[in-house]
Amino acid sequence: MANIILHEYARSGNCYKIRLTAALLGIPIERREYDIVKGETRTGAFLSGVNANGRIPVLQVGDDYLPESNAACFYLADGSHLIPHDRFDRADMLRWMFWEQYNHEPNVATLRFWYGWIGEENFSELQRAQLPAKRAAGEAALTLMDEHLAQAPFLVGDRATLADIALFAYTHVCEDGGFDLNRYPAVQAWLRRVVALPRFISIED
Amino acid sequence: MANIILHEYARSGNCYKIRLTAALLGIPIERREYDIVKGETRTGAFLSGVNANGRIPVLQVGDDYLPESNAACFYLADGSHLIPHDRFDRADMLRWMFWEQYNHEPNVATLRFWYGWIGEENFSELQRAQLPAKRAAGEAALTLMDEHLAQAPFLVGDRATLADIALFAYTHVCEDGGFDLNRYPAVQAWLRRVVALPRFISIED
Repeated sequence: MANIILHEYARSGNCYKIRLTAALLGIPIERREYDIVKGETRTGAFLSGVNANGRIPVLQVGDDYLPESNAACFYLADGSHLIPHDRFDRADMLRWMFWEQYNHEPNVATLRFWYGWIGEENFSELQRAQLPAKRAAGEAALTLMDEHLAQAPFLVGDRATLADIALFAYTHVCEDGGFDLNRYPAVQAWLRRVVALPRFISIED
Repeated sequence: MANIILHEYARSGNCYKIRLTAALLGIPIERREYDIVKGETRTGAFLSGVNANGRIPVLQVGDDYLPESNAACFYLADGSHLIPHDRFDRADMLRWMFWEQYNHEPNVATLRFWYGWIGEENFSELQRAQLPAKRAAGEAALTLMDEHLAQAPFLVGDRATLADIALFAYTHVCEDGGFDLNRYPAVQAWLRRVVALPRFISIED
């Protein structure tokens, strides 16, 4: 595999997903940190050289750049045990990963960012107006996971896949955004199963 | 392949993606229509039997149900020429598909739905407040596509992949949401290349 560099902001769950995938697979990656709060991913050099979308994470593979956290995880895990061999299960894994980006991240991760980085006292009027819908949608996402995980040890099949990594990233820190994990016991038990995976690393590592 | 049923609302771009993928690959699918405006995907039978998330499309494969449009496309196309064989390109295809769900659909598709189904005169206060940001983000998404497609015939490599299908679905009807395709000439040329693909079907088919 070519030399791999992760362009990231370490506290972002989307960046952590990629580090966790690499760790579980024993793939070494080099890390480059950008301070998103200081706008370091909106500079001309970043936009023209790394990602025209102005966002991290970006996985650099040799001279090629791959944005989008779940795509980067797929690249690292392609051909490994973290992607099911069964055709339906492989698509079902992607189903949870697309769901994560559409239904979970914009609510669970966004409220973590708002409360943890912006601060409630600094919320804009538009943010305050969006808060009830984002809270409800985040709770609905966690409830859907809880109902699914009450019936199964992992999101797809009986072992961990990228779907678990993608959803672990922001679920395990959802209380930073004001969600209450005690309301989701099957999610809590699943979080413990992910933490117990061999070579697991935390978001602080 | 098992008997395949698409649970859908035909005018939804997310449902059209799946029909277009099946058509390009010559895979027969049965279609079941639900009227989302009448809440037919929020009934108890739909939530417990088809998709707990209350959304279409869902691809039914035998007795298994697969929500999320891009995952359904991946299932149908797995092993076909619509998914690149090269490892990086395969991940890069998924990159555009995740980007579609995160950066494009919530803006370009949502404004089409708001203007075409809800009607400007019926917008809620929250919708009016979100409008400028959604307009700007939709334009940014179309601009990013235009810049990329000015350099390449398709989104990944030199032939059509699922990334093109996923992004064609709402881009080709973006004017329904008030976006002006004339501002994106490379996107317009790319739309014509997709329409010219063998076995192409329109959203009305």
